[in-house]
Amino acid sequence: MNQPIAFADSLRRPLPPALGTALRERFGERFSTAQAVREHHGRDESPFPTTPPEAVVFAQSTEDVVAVVDLCRAHAYPLIPYGAGSSLEGHLLAVHGGVSIDLSQMNRVLGIDAEDLTATVQAGVLRKQLNEELKSTGLFFPIDPGADASIGGMSATRASGTNAVRYGTMRENVLGLTVVTAEGKVVRTAGRAKKSAAGYDLTRLFVGSEGTLGVITEVTVRLYPLPEAISAAVCNFPSLAAAVNAVIQTIQLGVPIARSEFLCESTIAAINAYSNTTLREAPTLFFEFHGTESGVREQAELVQAIAREHGGQDFEWASRPEDRTRLWNARHSAYFACLQVRPGCRAISTDTCVPISRLADSITGARRILDTAKFPTMLLGHVGDGNFHAVLLVGPDDEREMAEAERLNDEIVRLALSMDGTCTGEHGIGLHKMGFLVEERGDDAIELMRRIKRALDPDNILNPGKIFTL
Amino acid sequence: MNQPIAFADSLRRPLPPALGTALRERFGERFSTAQAVREHHGRDESPFPTTPPEAVVFAQSTEDVVAVVDLCRAHAYPLIPYGAGSSLEGHLLAVHGGVSIDLSQMNRVLGIDAEDLTATVQAGVLRKQLNEELKSTGLFFPIDPGADASIGGMSATRASGTNAVRYGTMRENVLGLTVVTAEGKVVRTAGRAKKSAAGYDLTRLFVGSEGTLGVITEVTVRLYPLPEAISAAVCNFPSLAAAVNAVIQTIQLGVPIARSEFLCESTIAAINAYSNTTLREAPTLFFEFHGTESGVREQAELVQAIAREHGGQDFEWASRPEDRTRLWNARHSAYFACLQVRPGCRAISTDTCVPISRLADSITGARRILDTAKFPTMLLGHVGDGNFHAVLLVGPDDEREMAEAERLNDEIVRLALSMDGTCTGEHGIGLHKMGFLVEERGDDAIELMRRIKRALDPDNILNPGKIFTL
Repeated sequence: MNQPIAFADSLRRPLPPALGTALRERFGERFSTAQAVREHHGRDESPFPTTPPEAVVFAQSTEDVVAVVDLCRAHAYPLIPYGAGSSLEGHLLAVHGGVSIDLSQMNRVLGIDAEDLTATVQAGVLRKQLNEELKSTGLFFPIDPGADASIGGMSATRASGTNAVRYGTMRENVLGLTVVTAEGKVVRTAGRAKKSAAGYDLTRLFVGSEGTLGVITEVTVRLYPLPEAISAAVCNFPSLAAAVNAVIQTIQLGVPIARSEFLCESTIAAINAYSNTTLREAPTLFFEFHGTESGVREQAELVQAIAREHGGQDFEWASRPEDRTRLWNARHSAYFACLQVRPGCRAISTDTCVPISRLADSITGARRILDTAKFPTMLLGHVGDGNFHAVLLVGPDDEREMAEAERLNDEIVRLALSMDGTCTGEHGIGLHKMGFLVEERGDDAIELMRRIKRALDPDNILNPGKIFTL
Repeated sequence: MNQPIAFADSLRRPLPPALGTALRERFGERFSTAQAVREHHGRDESPFPTTPPEAVVFAQSTEDVVAVVDLCRAHAYPLIPYGAGSSLEGHLLAVHGGVSIDLSQMNRVLGIDAEDLTATVQAGVLRKQLNEELKSTGLFFPIDPGADASIGGMSATRASGTNAVRYGTMRENVLGLTVVTAEGKVVRTAGRAKKSAAGYDLTRLFVGSEGTLGVITEVTVRLYPLPEAISAAVCNFPSLAAAVNAVIQTIQLGVPIARSEFLCESTIAAINAYSNTTLREAPTLFFEFHGTESGVREQAELVQAIAREHGGQDFEWASRPEDRTRLWNARHSAYFACLQVRPGCRAISTDTCVPISRLADSITGARRILDTAKFPTMLLGHVGDGNFHAVLLVGPDDEREMAEAERLNDEIVRLALSMDGTCTGEHGIGLHKMGFLVEERGDDAIELMRRIKRALDPDNILNPGKIFTL
């Protein structure tokens, strides 16, 4: 079963004074131990209590990161990379103390190679900023978690979002990384060729390693030409199962749909209140189609026919770009909209992903499990991938509710695992899912991960206490 | 520069008699030390001399593999996984002696989950066999190296082929693996969910590890619905550069082409002789388009227009399925056709891959380098990925020609590396490209790979001497 998280004070190590002095000398005003700064770097979007680092350094270059790593290593003292602070599972909480390396000032797009459909960015570049800078090129970067996360953080958590069903996740869209290792070496994991069979896949090893194997300082990502035509639509269904089954059939037929998002009636209600929309409060799918004019028409007709078979209403089209933007902004703020349903609440969100044939069982099973909850719950997600989120809103200091929410969360995850699914499709393990990871992959697999961690970070200074225990 | 390969007898360790006895007891007739059997397992499609293992075991199950690993580990004796023997860089040569584990009898398709678009196979299943068994499902497995390789071997070398431009490589198409570790543990690296952010990406670590980190015994792969419409065409160009530039423009426009293969006039001549075809001996592209009827028509029209701009002749269509099969069989046998141009020759084939914008420079540069060769050379490849092969045919015992071929090979690889490319798009490192790997990724990256290797295989029993020196 999922492990309780140890936030024991005994784990925390204070900042060695000599390290503090050295960091201050090297970084001047870009080094801080101010309480407010530390607290800001000790919380993410997870329900965990703020767990601040002992100090924060604002890095501006890979060389800065090397300097921090070298100094921390000399004192065998932890360091924690920090991007936009939008992780959901406690990834960046300083449970062992440590120095937070804030990469938000490393926010330059280093190069856009439009002819190669690639861009290289510093780790602190935010996903919206990248797309802003791509505007004149006719290209875009599709990976879009709900938050405006940093590209480095998205790499570190193997993030995805609404476009993954068509364009893949960070796993498929990171071509190469610049990483500072625990020994302060700067390694470029790959060149810019689209494919390579040259040695171990270091890129994919660092993608999803949550800061535990190295500090990502630069990322080369794949870009895509903006489709000639885009259309988006909303469709209501008589039931959750009907909506999900429509998506399953769409995927099984191989329709190259760009987005297919499910939102339950409660999520729609939350969005309407938060984003000032007037969507019908019913189980709903948001669709988007990318392609040529005729390709998009063809896809849309096929998916409409499938939806109708499953009792879906007629598509309501978001034809104008501004309507589409409103629709997807509403979707991206769904998590924050849900939070507003119970002001001041803490949220637990599941993130299971199952083989597509099991999605209807998985999501209706989750609905059944949540029906017993005495607090608000919502279901939404990237159903085209088999991935959905249950959001459980518990009182801020209500330990009984929190325990109950964890119990329901456990049940939903275990149901997904029984279907050969995963406990996390895109949020990562962080602190919250360490127990689930063991359940999902087994001790022998975790032992391989531990060995890799020890081999690459023998002093355990890189974001210690995350993903698995050592 | 690329390292000379050490086939020194001093590296070879004889089979410990007690190990031989134990293996014979366990495997009976499925254990062999017969010269012919050993020699068969000591050569691949590389130009290297046969380097036989000391013994061969024919495994029929994951448990068999565990037994071999456990026995070899007890004697700290090497073992080398063997699939179809179609590797091109000496991957399976027993330079340290060792036991070859032949997986060809592990040839069962364990499950086809048509609804999930996945199949799970034993490692010895051949790619053509898998597609044969998929015939009734309306699905197919797209990865198609030239040879009829095993799915396990293709995973271990991160293979690709003609369809990679649309469907990706083994990197993208292996969902999960069952692996026997150096300690004889059986690890399943992932479930069947399409995406997961659960811990380190063990799947991608083993994909491309060339048998040095574990023995792959089962593979879960992604499948795709057979397209509603397929069309294929051949197009001649006035020059190599013109053909390549047509492909570059196609990729940059985002046309979702399924295949785009380049063949130089010498390759076409070799194919005509070998496959009894009557293709025009000119720089040529083979195209294939997948999609709906109208989608395929649209793609084909667009690519024809692009080809025309670059001086391409009208498309010659291979409309009937049997014409397409003939075309792609001819393409897949191109390597063997080239070998027949100089009977008894040895072949060196380059496998560089560069960012698409550099492909024309890379391939015309290779042509210029090869123009000085005094032996036959050909150019062909998966140009939509930026990947091509130069095939250099040297006399079987002509050391001067061999040295000259290696020198030209070096030049071609170095040109690709100067363009941020890779020394191998799909063949892997094996023995032949170990020096290039260091040049390409640098000592610090190789040191990370070494650490991972030592952590997962502390006794260095898994295919030792490959990818990098320890």
